[in-house]
Amino acid sequence: MANRSGNRMVVEGAIAAGCRFFSGYPITPASEIYQLMTERLPQRGDVAIGAPDEITALCYAVGASLRGFKAMTATSGPGWCLMIETVQYAIMTETPVVIALVQRLGPSTGGATQGAQGDILLAEFASSGGYTIPVFCPSNPLECYELTVHAFNWAEKLRTPVILLSDKEVGMTSESIDLSELGPLPVAEREKFDPSKRPDPQAFLPYFFAQSEDVPAFSPLGAGYKVTITGSAHNKLGQLKKNDPATLELLAHLQKKIDRHRAEIALAKADLEPGAEALVISFGITARAAREAARMARERRQKVSLLQLLTLFPVPEREITRCLDGSRRVIVAEENLTGQYRGLIRHLLGDREVIGVNKIGGMITPREILSAAIPMNSKRAAHFSGGKQTYGNDRSGA
Amino acid sequence: MANRSGNRMVVEGAIAAGCRFFSGYPITPASEIYQLMTERLPQRGDVAIGAPDEITALCYAVGASLRGFKAMTATSGPGWCLMIETVQYAIMTETPVVIALVQRLGPSTGGATQGAQGDILLAEFASSGGYTIPVFCPSNPLECYELTVHAFNWAEKLRTPVILLSDKEVGMTSESIDLSELGPLPVAEREKFDPSKRPDPQAFLPYFFAQSEDVPAFSPLGAGYKVTITGSAHNKLGQLKKNDPATLELLAHLQKKIDRHRAEIALAKADLEPGAEALVISFGITARAAREAARMARERRQKVSLLQLLTLFPVPEREITRCLDGSRRVIVAEENLTGQYRGLIRHLLGDREVIGVNKIGGMITPREILSAAIPMNSKRAAHFSGGKQTYGNDRSGA
Amino acid sequence: MANRSGNRMVVEGAIAAGCRFFSGYPITPASEIYQLMTERLPQRGDVAIGAPDEITALCYAVGASLRGFKAMTATSGPGWCLMIETVQYAIMTETPVVIALVQRLGPSTGGATQGAQGDILLAEFASSGGYTIPVFCPSNPLECYELTVHAFNWAEKLRTPVILLSDKEVGMTSESIDLSELGPLPVAEREKFDPSKRPDPQAFLPYFFAQSEDVPAFSPLGAGYKVTITGSAHNKLGQLKKNDPATLELLAHLQKKIDRHRAEIALAKADLEPGAEALVISFGITARAAREAARMARERRQKVSLLQLLTLFPVPEREITRCLDGSRRVIVAEENLTGQYRGLIRHLLGDREVIGVNKIGGMITPREILSAAIPMNSKRAAHFSGGKQTYGNDRSGA
Amino acid sequence: MANRSGNRMVVEGAIAAGCRFFSGYPITPASEIYQLMTERLPQRGDVAIGAPDEITALCYAVGASLRGFKAMTATSGPGWCLMIETVQYAIMTETPVVIALVQRLGPSTGGATQGAQGDILLAEFASSGGYTIPVFCPSNPLECYELTVHAFNWAEKLRTPVILLSDKEVGMTSESIDLSELGPLPVAEREKFDPSKRPDPQAFLPYFFAQSEDVPAFSPLGAGYKVTITGSAHNKLGQLKKNDPATLELLAHLQKKIDRHRAEIALAKADLEPGAEALVISFGITARAAREAARMARERRQKVSLLQLLTLFPVPEREITRCLDGSRRVIVAEENLTGQYRGLIRHLLGDREVIGVNKIGGMITPREILSAAIPMNSKRAAHFSGGKQTYGNDRSGA
Repeated sequence: MANRSGNRMVVEGAIAAGCRFFSGYPITPASEIYQLMTERLPQRGDVAIGAPDEITALCYAVGASLRGFKAMTATSGPGWCLMIETVQYAIMTETPVVIALVQRLGPSTGGATQGAQGDILLAEFASSGGYTIPVFCPSNPLECYELTVHAFNWAEKLRTPVILLSDKEVGMTSESIDLSELGPLPVAEREKFDPSKRPDPQAFLPYFFAQSEDVPAFSPLGAGYKVTITGSAHNKLGQLKKNDPATLELLAHLQKKIDRHRAEIALAKADLEPGAEALVISFGITARAAREAARMARERRQKVSLLQLLTLFPVPEREITRCLDGSRRVIVAEENLTGQYRGLIRHLLGDREVIGVNKIGGMITPREILSAAIPMNSKRAAHFSGGKQTYGNDRSGA
Repeated sequence: MANRSGNRMVVEGAIAAGCRFFSGYPITPASEIYQLMTERLPQRGDVAIGAPDEITALCYAVGASLRGFKAMTATSGPGWCLMIETVQYAIMTETPVVIALVQRLGPSTGGATQGAQGDILLAEFASSGGYTIPVFCPSNPLECYELTVHAFNWAEKLRTPVILLSDKEVGMTSESIDLSELGPLPVAEREKFDPSKRPDPQAFLPYFFAQSEDVPAFSPLGAGYKVTITGSAHNKLGQLKKNDPATLELLAHLQKKIDRHRAEIALAKADLEPGAEALVISFGITARAAREAARMARERRQKVSLLQLLTLFPVPEREITRCLDGSRRVIVAEENLTGQYRGLIRHLLGDREVIGVNKIGGMITPREILSAAIPMNSKRAAHFSGGKQTYGNDRSGA
Repeated sequence: MANRSGNRMVVEGAIAAGCRFFSGYPITPASEIYQLMTERLPQRGDVAIGAPDEITALCYAVGASLRGFKAMTATSGPGWCLMIETVQYAIMTETPVVIALVQRLGPSTGGATQGAQGDILLAEFASSGGYTIPVFCPSNPLECYELTVHAFNWAEKLRTPVILLSDKEVGMTSESIDLSELGPLPVAEREKFDPSKRPDPQAFLPYFFAQSEDVPAFSPLGAGYKVTITGSAHNKLGQLKKNDPATLELLAHLQKKIDRHRAEIALAKADLEPGAEALVISFGITARAAREAARMARERRQKVSLLQLLTLFPVPEREITRCLDGSRRVIVAEENLTGQYRGLIRHLLGDREVIGVNKIGGMITPREILSAAIPMNSKRAAHFSGGKQTYGNDRSGA
Repeated sequence: MANRSGNRMVVEGAIAAGCRFFSGYPITPASEIYQLMTERLPQRGDVAIGAPDEITALCYAVGASLRGFKAMTATSGPGWCLMIETVQYAIMTETPVVIALVQRLGPSTGGATQGAQGDILLAEFASSGGYTIPVFCPSNPLECYELTVHAFNWAEKLRTPVILLSDKEVGMTSESIDLSELGPLPVAEREKFDPSKRPDPQAFLPYFFAQSEDVPAFSPLGAGYKVTITGSAHNKLGQLKKNDPATLELLAHLQKKIDRHRAEIALAKADLEPGAEALVISFGITARAAREAARMARERRQKVSLLQLLTLFPVPEREITRCLDGSRRVIVAEENLTGQYRGLIRHLLGDREVIGVNKIGGMITPREILSAAIPMNSKRAAHFSGGKQTYGNDRSGA
């Protein structure tokens, strides 16, 4: 058993998932993933490349994936900006690829060594058209491992980019992990085109689907079938066709194939207390404070329910609404100013009191969550504590 | 009187607003703005530059603005991706700049000559931290003119990037406009640092605010005061300070200065029908179809209320909630698959029936809006019409 | 009268020559040119741009020139490398442009603050095909002024890139210069296409020449005549034609138009001593040491002739051979290791003893030149003096 | 036995020489090398990367070499321009790397599918400082193989970039080659740092030499010794030191280590005819025409001597002067306008008549060489033949 950071466990997860290609450009706090992938992959005969910039880093990973290799990159907010053009190319070309996005304080170059949960919207809404990009969000090294495997699996199954949304605290905090005890997680592969299943194997269509929500079978570049690849709107052959119904259907299919698997993609951990007035929703590093807040509450015989979201997108609506029963108050704790995720789920929360616990420049503390969940113990005014600013708890609802 | 396109009227608006610098990289359907600015500005002794790429295009505009000139760029979705790194730099450095974003069909290079309203989330949520970027959305050439002036005014007053979110149909459709009849719109200037107002003029702080929501007085680079400019988190002097309360307060200030002016920034046109069961919310090109749908309804003596949003962000919450009275049904019509704006305002709509009219690859028709607003006339199933796909009207709510 | 550096006088020369556009990327020791052009040109309503890199810097200047404006950039060795692709484009498209190349110690980033005369071959032989690029080489601020005017004049007259090859010592050393006493130098303009001289003005050919050595009349982009511009081999219309005799003739013409003016381009200053055994050939900063060496020799009643080359390319063969009479010994002094220019002119020197005085990391001293010219006073072995290395005087010939 | 092109045999040579890394950017007529390396290296567990541009292509190869792997790139003239910055970095950092430069017609993008021998000066004089870069020049597929091995060997032995200067005709012409009959050529490795040979292994100096002309022993990045790498002038430790004697000695050493091996690097094939009046000097594709010209002459009982240079740089002076005996006339045949190589060796040819046979846009024919070598059969005026232009035979000398 040894101490392993979240970043390191992302690497272990990637390798367990069958990642064979990594390209990246170093950036704090994601550099450890870059460094370890660069060490580990070549030892296995696989390839890790330092790219000249982030644009190229994701382009390389997309290229490797199109050749049939599971591929990944890792970056932080400032680098992610430069990848947005290419992540759309991956969406349009239905290319599986995993991006580990280790958040730091923004905007712009912001604070390289300060954690944050501020890239939720920047990550998810990276496409012209608003196509859903699956986003998984770990809170500790073990979840880094598991969710990285999930990220690869869903990237492959749905032929789509997937984001592993970590942050500086999760990525750089080490915990004792026994690699040998990690349960073997199922590993998925993209469906390969099988000529024996098709009446006319010559008629390979690189973007064929029978139903809009199906995922096309894949044939790698160079494997004998003609694969046309373009970031422009195209039909099932890959041909550019303007305002063609088949082309528009294909664009809709890009969203429908994700939507269809919404329920399976949704991962969450609930710790519900019968009769609890308050439900705390959290994710990532903040989920750790939430767990501690609940423990403290229970010590005082106060009831607080917890919902930790491991999947942020597609929004796990059912998991959220299921946990609402009886709660009159919902706390959404996230390390950003504006309550990014709270804004997206507020319509699911009905007329409950919704309280955002938000802060930047430091981790949200269990006490801050607790005082929002059990308000009689709290003034709930904006305050400075320990050099960190609490931006103010936003209260809305009936 | 002559026919003038929306793109041309963006240029007229920019010049009326005092724009003195343009840099761009040509892209359909925004190239006309590039072309006209390149003709017009040098005639006035001002500067227009063709940049080698979109990254540079926005960097140049930011640089010109920091020297004290009102500055602008124009692009479409694929180019906008490359500007996201720099728009954050503008947010962090409190640099006024206007970006005309003329939407086309995405994702990726998508359809260069097809309109869309798919960049709403991509435009607004372009920052790590989720800082509000004001977004104005015209539906015709005249509004292009007026909202471009507004965009410059708010960019200057708030020292922030502002987006003029047009689209291919609005940008390239011409209407008869008499320039001489355009009312003179008020033109705002950023507040210049005035040493006479300060006890110690030596003590110029480039990012000084007394209250968090104030906007710092500006002194251009090269004007005699030391201006430190960095994309990293900094205090009022521009010094990098890690986890310093003053630095965190400055980051909060970046959001608060926008929030404070929420009400003034909000622009909308309401056409309410007493007793109407349905309210149609729309913006941009789709607002034209919505107006026509209302006209058709009224011809049939059916009551439909209209709300056209000219400001998309900050979300004009008051304007929206004010118009809800009596409506049991809210239709949000937008030319994208997933109902990007509808998702953001749904929590404001209470338990009303919310119907999204969404479509890609072609303009939403008045009839499509009408059949959603007055459902007895409609099957409201997904259907193909005229080669365009209606993705399906999403119905939610009680 | 004020002290003005060589770099400053390059700027004065450029403005006197009618330069209206500058683009650059700062690099020691050329940055002063960048800075001053950026100040001066906008004051006149002209344009100076900071480019995002050296590739773009020269591209911009070429673009401005194609629009009809006299244009310039300035750089040092590391930046020049990045301009080589584009200087060839200027050769092929017959675009006048001046590049001020202020040498520093190489190779690679070498020594930013150390002078050198090491870019002679790198500058001249920058084209695939070995096309002659005129190169002028000043030794003091006044010559910087005059040769910059000459550089613009020949660029315009021959529609070709021209290099002003300065160095760190020349560029950054100031001398007392009275601007008002600078004689008005003739200023040349590229020949404009004159439709009245042509039977059929419609038949404008952008690369027309009657004789191979003629220079085509110019019409700027956007002035009404169709101008096709390509870096690929083309005929007089600008059309790509493979292995077409007219295309090959045009390629030969690119060299012949320079060759024809060889004699006029050649500038040199000779100070010949009848009966002198030794001729010292020098240029740039080293010419100053050579003059001092001759003065010292003459004080001792020793005879030394001097030839300072102001034009390095086309090699002023006639000026060199004319000065050889009677000399049994030729000294070529240059601040580089391998005797770059000596190697190129050695065949002109017949069976005379040829001695290279070469040194890097410091200026060649008058004494070093003198001891090569009057050998009895010298051991002429490689030695270190004052922290500078003398690489060794190479002696060749009969 | 199969037909194999020169490009293919470059690949075979690289693999025989132990090349383990290739990075490139495709360009006609070098793309076949890119394509084959991309196929072949991964099959051996080695790495081939398509770079996003030529700058990156050479940077990657330099990086791989610094990690201890033999590395190569391939390009043509337009791409070479972009590599010049980095080739200087390789010179300064003493990094072995091979660049296959397959010439096409310039200047600029020129003629992608037309051969040329126009990059001789552009290739050799690519450094600020004029440092000698070894250049080998094959005339057929077999020489491509052998000289590529030599190129790697000298790159490794001297820790320097080396150029394999091929051209479109040599690269793309196939000949029957039996790979199994290729004699095993000796393969050299860079000298590795051996701690047992040093009194204090801790005192590893990455740029240590006892004598200026020695080559430092190499230790790869990451192998345990500290290796400081900089493109700036440095001492034996890699430390930047301005005007330090040790630093200047190191710069001189970069040239001296090449000079010392001049004789060994020199490769040439002479076919001397006793009593021949004319010596034809040629290289690359033109050597094939020269051989045929000699054969034709001998059929007519005319005496013509041949010297084919396989090494162009360092100039094989001894091989050239040795072959001059008795010849009153020297013909230098090269496929460029200005006689690039002739200019560099003219001083070695004494007062012999020197005739340049030059041509662009097509191969020089045996007859053109013959008529220069045996002048009574020739008018030797510029003429057009078969759609190709003969630029004119330049005659100089006594």
